[in-house]
Amino acid sequence: MSTTNETPPSLQIEEHGDPLEDSRAFRRALGQFATGVSVITMNHEGVNIGMAVNSFAAVSLEPALISWSIRNESRNRDNFANGGHFAVNILASDQVETSALFGRPQEGQFEQVPWHEGILGDPLLDNAIAHLECEIDSTVEAGDHLILIGKVKRYARLAGMPLVFAQGQYRVSREHPRLQLTTAAPLSTAVSGDSSNSPLFVSLLRNAEQRMSNMFNSYRERLGLDGTGARVINLLDAGIGTIDGISDEGLMHENTVEDTLRDFLQRGWIAEASEGVYALSAEGIKIRARLLESAIEFNAKRLEGVSEADLEAARRVLNQILVN
Amino acid sequence: MSTTNETPPSLQIEEHGDPLEDSRAFRRALGQFATGVSVITMNHEGVNIGMAVNSFAAVSLEPALISWSIRNESRNRDNFANGGHFAVNILASDQVETSALFGRPQEGQFEQVPWHEGILGDPLLDNAIAHLECEIDSTVEAGDHLILIGKVKRYARLAGMPLVFAQGQYRVSREHPRLQLTTAAPLSTAVSGDSSNSPLFVSLLRNAEQRMSNMFNSYRERLGLDGTGARVINLLDAGIGTIDGISDEGLMHENTVEDTLRDFLQRGWIAEASEGVYALSAEGIKIRARLLESAIEFNAKRLEGVSEADLEAARRVLNQILVN
Repeated sequence: MSTTNETPPSLQIEEHGDPLEDSRAFRRALGQFATGVSVITMNHEGVNIGMAVNSFAAVSLEPALISWSIRNESRNRDNFANGGHFAVNILASDQVETSALFGRPQEGQFEQVPWHEGILGDPLLDNAIAHLECEIDSTVEAGDHLILIGKVKRYARLAGMPLVFAQGQYRVSREHPRLQLTTAAPLSTAVSGDSSNSPLFVSLLRNAEQRMSNMFNSYRERLGLDGTGARVINLLDAGIGTIDGISDEGLMHENTVEDTLRDFLQRGWIAEASEGVYALSAEGIKIRARLLESAIEFNAKRLEGVSEADLEAARRVLNQILVN
Repeated sequence: MSTTNETPPSLQIEEHGDPLEDSRAFRRALGQFATGVSVITMNHEGVNIGMAVNSFAAVSLEPALISWSIRNESRNRDNFANGGHFAVNILASDQVETSALFGRPQEGQFEQVPWHEGILGDPLLDNAIAHLECEIDSTVEAGDHLILIGKVKRYARLAGMPLVFAQGQYRVSREHPRLQLTTAAPLSTAVSGDSSNSPLFVSLLRNAEQRMSNMFNSYRERLGLDGTGARVINLLDAGIGTIDGISDEGLMHENTVEDTLRDFLQRGWIAEASEGVYALSAEGIKIRARLLESAIEFNAKRLEGVSEADLEAARRVLNQILVN
């Protein structure tokens, strides 16, 4: 439609530029592409090694090839590059801890998760949702990383939903909101003899929640805060002030926490209370209060026209669902 | 923990084997890795070309390198391989139609979406959440695909959430259910003077929905149906019987629909009514009825202990949220 070579003024550009001038901002742009999380494992001379990566990609069906990449500075780089084989374990949505376990080098990783040995001798994580056992087909030097191309000798698909990593956060996937109710779940109980033709409660709940969550996100953005920023503010308010603590509690990558804290420092919302421990400043406490006010105002707007009695009843129902 | 080299019998393996013996099953295993969706664009001798791909991967920060791959059989393969430059447009969660538009070759693609020209002359889609303008660094032959490695000359990050593709479905991402309520959104209205200390309705709604949805998924699986299977059954029941129709309405890849229909044919749940049009068989209608019964039974269980009056009130509240 537009065929101008000017950037349209309506575009909501958050950051742009030359990647070499701001590699953190570039990484945030790359983080817009959602990925799964995989743990690459191998048995290297009798010792199991593993590392979490999100650079996995399917490459070819025939022959069956996949790729991933490893930092040249990684201590496991040569082991993986020269080992001849490895296994890709695609993590399930409930494996955040497994991703963290293999996210940095540490001892005893394979003592903390169930696994079994695959056909090439590499450990396969029992709770993954896919195993791809590979022989190395080739490697490609690519900047500060090495791309490994593996030929898949055996695949397994297991039950479960994938863990998702996007915008620096561990997330899960859900049905697309555009999907018609009838498609996702039976809409009507009419055929069962109930003449009310009312949607199943689970369907109604899903739609209301999606609508309210989406509107909440746009509402929050008016404060200049995205979901990550709001999450970090809430954690700081709860007294969690270290990068590791915020990362663990907030299910965010350390890089994302670092970037956010750096931004908050510049805005004057936080101060370093002691080495590596951050706390909200007077200004930050105001922002947190505004965030809360804004959420309360938002709730009130969305619930306009609802009687106090109905709201109390709805709360009772939702609380019952949480304990049933 | 387990150090056996036998596959533990508890594993819920859906399919496994040699990729060359069943490339469809192998593709389903690859589909366990969630991805974003990107459209690769370029201006080729004055003509804009574009194609949707999910094989994008970040490779290197310094130098700034990314990769994606294209089928050797693609009619655009040589244009992209020899063009010297391209742009990666990472799609937002509301761009399912844009992905479909660039999912297969067709005329007039760039007349149907807003775009502007980037610094290398390639079209950038206005509504994407990231633009990566690249010069080709190198290409790598890899089986039936060519891997293109691009050097990013300019990045832009735009506001928005990513579209997600997983298990053959277009999906969106959501906060991880493990995230504490307080972290995702302010839990309590206490500081505002409300002494009830009750969670905000949006938070309660989110938690109840997540719990109910997760339990619904496991419930459905007892019928031997995953989310995709249930979705296809519901669409067939609604009279949508072609691969394209089911793919469009169900936000699923054609391959996924084909695989599911093939499976249903084998199980005797569907028959081909006319060429390329499928309909539920008597057996399929039974399955659909069992699916509905199962959903109703599930709802009843989750709502055990809830009074009829409260349930009606809760329905009124949720319906009001949908119109507010």
